[in-house]
Amino acid sequence: MNRKLILRILSRAALAEAALLLISAVVGLLHGDAVLIPFGVPILLLLLVFLALGRVKPQSKDFFAREGFVSVALAWGFMSLFGALPFCLSGAIPSFLDSVFETVSGFTTTGASLLGDVELMPKGLLFWRSFTHWIGGMGVLVFLLALTALAGDRSIYLMRAESPGPSVGKLTPRLRASAGILYLIYLAMTVLLIALLLLGGMEPFDSVTNAFSIAGTGGFAVRNGGIAAYHSAYIENVMTLFMILFGTNFTLYYFVLAKKPLEALANEELRWYLGIFAAATLAVTISILPGCAGVLEALRLAAFQNASMMSTTGFATADFNLWPVFSHMFLLLLMFVGASAGSTGGGFKVSRVALLLKSIRRELSRTLHPRSVGRINFDGKTVETETSHGVLVYLSVYVLIATTGVLLVSLNGYDHVTTFSAVMATFNNIGPGLGLVGPMENFSVFSPFSKIVLSALMLLGRLEIYPILMVCSPSVWRRK
Amino acid sequence: MNRKLILRILSRAALAEAALLLISAVVGLLHGDAVLIPFGVPILLLLLVFLALGRVKPQSKDFFAREGFVSVALAWGFMSLFGALPFCLSGAIPSFLDSVFETVSGFTTTGASLLGDVELMPKGLLFWRSFTHWIGGMGVLVFLLALTALAGDRSIYLMRAESPGPSVGKLTPRLRASAGILYLIYLAMTVLLIALLLLGGMEPFDSVTNAFSIAGTGGFAVRNGGIAAYHSAYIENVMTLFMILFGTNFTLYYFVLAKKPLEALANEELRWYLGIFAAATLAVTISILPGCAGVLEALRLAAFQNASMMSTTGFATADFNLWPVFSHMFLLLLMFVGASAGSTGGGFKVSRVALLLKSIRRELSRTLHPRSVGRINFDGKTVETETSHGVLVYLSVYVLIATTGVLLVSLNGYDHVTTFSAVMATFNNIGPGLGLVGPMENFSVFSPFSKIVLSALMLLGRLEIYPILMVCSPSVWRRK
Repeated sequence: MNRKLILRILSRAALAEAALLLISAVVGLLHGDAVLIPFGVPILLLLLVFLALGRVKPQSKDFFAREGFVSVALAWGFMSLFGALPFCLSGAIPSFLDSVFETVSGFTTTGASLLGDVELMPKGLLFWRSFTHWIGGMGVLVFLLALTALAGDRSIYLMRAESPGPSVGKLTPRLRASAGILYLIYLAMTVLLIALLLLGGMEPFDSVTNAFSIAGTGGFAVRNGGIAAYHSAYIENVMTLFMILFGTNFTLYYFVLAKKPLEALANEELRWYLGIFAAATLAVTISILPGCAGVLEALRLAAFQNASMMSTTGFATADFNLWPVFSHMFLLLLMFVGASAGSTGGGFKVSRVALLLKSIRRELSRTLHPRSVGRINFDGKTVETETSHGVLVYLSVYVLIATTGVLLVSLNGYDHVTTFSAVMATFNNIGPGLGLVGPMENFSVFSPFSKIVLSALMLLGRLEIYPILMVCSPSVWRRK
Repeated sequence: MNRKLILRILSRAALAEAALLLISAVVGLLHGDAVLIPFGVPILLLLLVFLALGRVKPQSKDFFAREGFVSVALAWGFMSLFGALPFCLSGAIPSFLDSVFETVSGFTTTGASLLGDVELMPKGLLFWRSFTHWIGGMGVLVFLLALTALAGDRSIYLMRAESPGPSVGKLTPRLRASAGILYLIYLAMTVLLIALLLLGGMEPFDSVTNAFSIAGTGGFAVRNGGIAAYHSAYIENVMTLFMILFGTNFTLYYFVLAKKPLEALANEELRWYLGIFAAATLAVTISILPGCAGVLEALRLAAFQNASMMSTTGFATADFNLWPVFSHMFLLLLMFVGASAGSTGGGFKVSRVALLLKSIRRELSRTLHPRSVGRINFDGKTVETETSHGVLVYLSVYVLIATTGVLLVSLNGYDHVTTFSAVMATFNNIGPGLGLVGPMENFSVFSPFSKIVLSALMLLGRLEIYPILMVCSPSVWRRK
């Protein structure tokens, strides 16, 4: 393990976070907030960390998957701890643990909040809170990119299922160039979304923060009523469209930029993604129709909520707690399926679900017809056995962690639906669940222990489990 | 596909069922029931089927896994349809669909009932109802035995995970001899249980029917209050012990008979089975302690309920609906884990859970340490990759079917807990669930469509999924 290089990466993360906090402090100043203590102190601390860790000189440039996993997991944890300081120093969230929960929820683009009345919060802090979603989404894109670049290493073969389709890494050979392209696409789409929201009559502050939430597929709202507070079908439909867009594999936008839009449309994961979304929207529309003013309203509500769940954003325009149980089951299923690989969304990922279903079909046909060969094709290519095996393992680990989470959170004594949906909503990085953590409620009901468990689930889900397990494994840290 | 041989097997099943119905009719006569129509008609029909199908002469004796799977699935369905006749002909359960549900629940040793007041039912029918559990349990033992005997065939490699440990098939080379030994053990243990229940002051009719329920790990009760109606700690403890014993791999009893008890105790699945049971009992005891009169009462209730869930019997001495949510999560987990392979119990099976956990650990260590070899040992032997892969596939298929079941049953509009636990309780062949299908309730609340879905889940769970899928696959039936 190249520890010195990891420390160097953390020093860079500290500098970046100081700069990002500075932007938020400026927004706060413009709105007349007191920013000296809440933002000044963490910026100063981060600069000290940068200077201290920046003195470490790595002796080698060896950087393998293991170093990548560990530095990503540590960076996420480190940035959450320092990013929590503005909330507790300002007194907006008095408890440090609660501040960390809110910040982990931000950086992991979950959007599970402890706040009952967000409109009370100073604008600078509210901006920082939504900004963490946007930063987290950007971080995930680079993380996935780096993984693909390292994919030659056998140790991460389990994660290669992540992007069985095209990947930016294969398009431009240099990591730095690929990251630049992804950032530009991410930035351009965010700016476009802000413009469209402004056109719909939304205030500039709300447009920017909501766009951050959607770009990172986070889900922190800046109004107590969530998105329903804007009373605008136009805004809802724009958001539905962009939640779907940000839940799409970003490589496909690169294809569009490279003037190969047909290749992007032919992508198999995209077709699964849109197919599942369309089928679920049809089912939920029918399910909620009796309680709606008409088919169009039911369709708009269902499409918004399904896009919100599947992209793992977690916005709500209606209290879906009150919808029929059948629609809940679909929402829970979409929570699990999640967004496309290579997007800012979370969840199990559409490509994994597709590979899982294909593996199951192959295995069943092998059982029924022993002499059949049974290859799995995805996106026109034969999938290696190791990849499909990796998806089965990922499902098993996923089920094991989710079960452990449910057992630990059930110690809190809340009802089954609250317990189960809180675990699903955090582990898949959605935000709201059902019951006491429904869209019109928040996570403040939980005990400190449950908050720690749920924070861990958010990190596990966001970084796709293995990096966090790696950091927790003593043998990884042992010197050779 | 050797269709004629399958028809011949069905004709034998018809004859056997006629004989078993005759026994129940005699019990009914002794209690003064009207038996001519309820039992006479199905016996006559079964004899006609026997005579008609018995005329089919198989041209070949080819019998492979495929024929085995199909004939087992057909026999279970066929016997359930004819076994349902006494209930609807007598008017005890007026609807034929409901009678089929009750009988499928019996033969699959599930124990999910539609009856609110079982004490109203004539004794002969009540005997037949419990008898189906005992017959089903016996059928499962032979089914598993036959599978092991056929295990050389590649097509069932997925099911070999069933019994990675010792199996009777390996002990006595001839199938018929092995089946005889299993039947004798099963019969002797049932007789011993009847004797112990009689010693506890239970009426002879109740002793026999309850022993049938426990031997088959079914769970139909003959009193409205379930096992709590007997108000006897002795009876509860005897039942706890025997539920655990009938959830144990029967091969181990063969070892004991062969005077090798130490080999039986060294069995790895047994140690996992007892370990999980002990850990869960400790957790549930602590969880329910505040509502109990003392530690001993809490321990007795927890041990009984956990043994009932893990062996998939489904008896209840307390309304665990009222227990804390934390204990419910453990009960749901035990429902999933289920009993040992090679027992009369259902569920995912302890050996599969153990292999799954070992596979996950192996895969994680391969991710963390790319150069590690990572073999899985079970019961002192190295497990083939195909076997551990098969367990991962089985989990995926299991999750897929359970999810489909939850979606279909949620159309009924009941709450999440009722919907989810009804699927878990039928698919794992337990019986009662939580909420509206809790231990003091019954399944009569469901719509006909849900009853059909739940019946299908009982059959899928009991026959470990693949045989039922095989029967439903058109390509299996196609002539070459």
